[in-house]
Amino acid sequence: MDIPELQLLSSHRLFDGSQKRYRHRSTSLNCEMNFSIFLPPGVRQEAEIFHGSGGPEGSRTPRPGNSRKAPVIYWLSGLTCTDENFTIKAGAQRVAAELGIVLVMPDTSPRGEGVARASDGAYDLGLGAGFYVNATQEPWSQHYRMYDYIVDELPALVEQCFPVNDKRAICGHSMGGHGALVIALRNPARYRSVSAFSPIVNPITTPWGKKAFSHYLGDDIKNWWGYDATLLVEAARPSEHLPLLIDQGDADEFLAEQLKLERFVSACEAAKYPVQVNLREGYDHSYFFISTFIGNHLRFHAEALDSQ
Amino acid sequence: MDIPELQLLSSHRLFDGSQKRYRHRSTSLNCEMNFSIFLPPGVRQEAEIFHGSGGPEGSRTPRPGNSRKAPVIYWLSGLTCTDENFTIKAGAQRVAAELGIVLVMPDTSPRGEGVARASDGAYDLGLGAGFYVNATQEPWSQHYRMYDYIVDELPALVEQCFPVNDKRAICGHSMGGHGALVIALRNPARYRSVSAFSPIVNPITTPWGKKAFSHYLGDDIKNWWGYDATLLVEAARPSEHLPLLIDQGDADEFLAEQLKLERFVSACEAAKYPVQVNLREGYDHSYFFISTFIGNHLRFHAEALDSQ
Repeated sequence: MDIPELQLLSSHRLFDGSQKRYRHRSTSLNCEMNFSIFLPPGVRQEAEIFHGSGGPEGSRTPRPGNSRKAPVIYWLSGLTCTDENFTIKAGAQRVAAELGIVLVMPDTSPRGEGVARASDGAYDLGLGAGFYVNATQEPWSQHYRMYDYIVDELPALVEQCFPVNDKRAICGHSMGGHGALVIALRNPARYRSVSAFSPIVNPITTPWGKKAFSHYLGDDIKNWWGYDATLLVEAARPSEHLPLLIDQGDADEFLAEQLKLERFVSACEAAKYPVQVNLREGYDHSYFFISTFIGNHLRFHAEALDSQ
Repeated sequence: MDIPELQLLSSHRLFDGSQKRYRHRSTSLNCEMNFSIFLPPGVRQEAEIFHGSGGPEGSRTPRPGNSRKAPVIYWLSGLTCTDENFTIKAGAQRVAAELGIVLVMPDTSPRGEGVARASDGAYDLGLGAGFYVNATQEPWSQHYRMYDYIVDELPALVEQCFPVNDKRAICGHSMGGHGALVIALRNPARYRSVSAFSPIVNPITTPWGKKAFSHYLGDDIKNWWGYDATLLVEAARPSEHLPLLIDQGDADEFLAEQLKLERFVSACEAAKYPVQVNLREGYDHSYFFISTFIGNHLRFHAEALDSQ
């Protein structure tokens, strides 16, 4: 693997750990990408970075001192988000600091000059709406390979540059809940646990998913199946079941038309895939909902990650 | 007092309470104003609203059921903020829910058509920069009366429409820390406690303060004195001392030039005004800093408010 180059964009102390934002060149996405990372107290508070300009974090030599490595939870955000929404709004770092867990927040699509965008400026296609798939259709296939980016490239980079071990969990919201479920169900050996808030669980039958998949993957619906959590959970082998938690607000304005959680729950029952579903009375689709229950999700993952 | 008219702009459930945003006509500011409010579980989750259109919250009759009233903490934000920054970023509602405290987040200046703004679009004058003073100079004096709004008008409205008692505390960040200190020191009978993050404590000698005060209050520096926490704390009567807490990051990029906390601490010592100051190593001026220690501040106020 090439030595990655990371550019530090910002750094803030919080809960005795560090919230940092980096830019790097992504080979899977063929563009520059930002991601955010929270480093809890007790691990090294900076990346091993290898860009030429040096600077306060530039170094080719491992640093002395703390060599503890922490497990990682990847958070996948929903439509319109960047790496910053969860970072700023969810209040997750407090519990991650307590549990000694690293949080990694990627962006939700490729970005930048030359990256295709929705011709009508729609929020549910193109920028901010990568849907965690590998696009096969022009013009999207040039850059929209978020599946590969999340499954392979970003974890490889994180594990090379930051004080983390290979214990991974994955979690997300809405489109990101779809991404977390699909990625964990297709790669159960790579994750210890998976959870989602308000996930799009059956995108091949619901409007957001049908729109995105037809553009990214073409009209042959057989090519969509591999990105549908409800189909994937039915196909999961019992030996590959992961701890799986879902929280869903019953006042979620997208539940009936876009999310269709009941289909996933039925599929889990049919397949005997154990899933813990919390239907939360009065809660909607917003980050206020996430902020209320994110602590529960992190503790759920911590147990699977053997972290405190 | 006239019957206030409140327009509900948004409502979200979080931590089993409610985060709501309202618009109302402010007489002190002579414009429409937004504010946000968090209602903890255990009190009525809606305003008594008196606007003509009715709607789900419209009612002239007191509602049956829960009649418990909670104490209130007013949060004053810093430069460039609206009522939403703290609401979204600080993570305060979790602890407020636990303590049974209402949080009220006002905007930081008058807004809207006809409200004067900085001619050069500066961030530190005009919109988002009211500095919690009553402006006496044209064109500002038409609307910029944030002192009266925070001290009198908003609490009167909150206490008429929401399930709160008359126990008040006040807290803020940067320009809002200045506002909280000045308002509490000038009105000790109205508050049980006061706290601040990274406050501008001596604005009559520092750049942000001098710029704002010269525009809002004119060139006669005697008219600035009543808005300077360092001068006010020296003049406070011992019988009117309030519990006072300050948190300040030592990596705050504004500490040396704009905040000058050491001057306030010296004045407190000279005046024998008890103050608890926490200098936090490595923390900056951001909401990540606030989010780390807001729980401590709410618990500090809860003790003074006799809330749990």
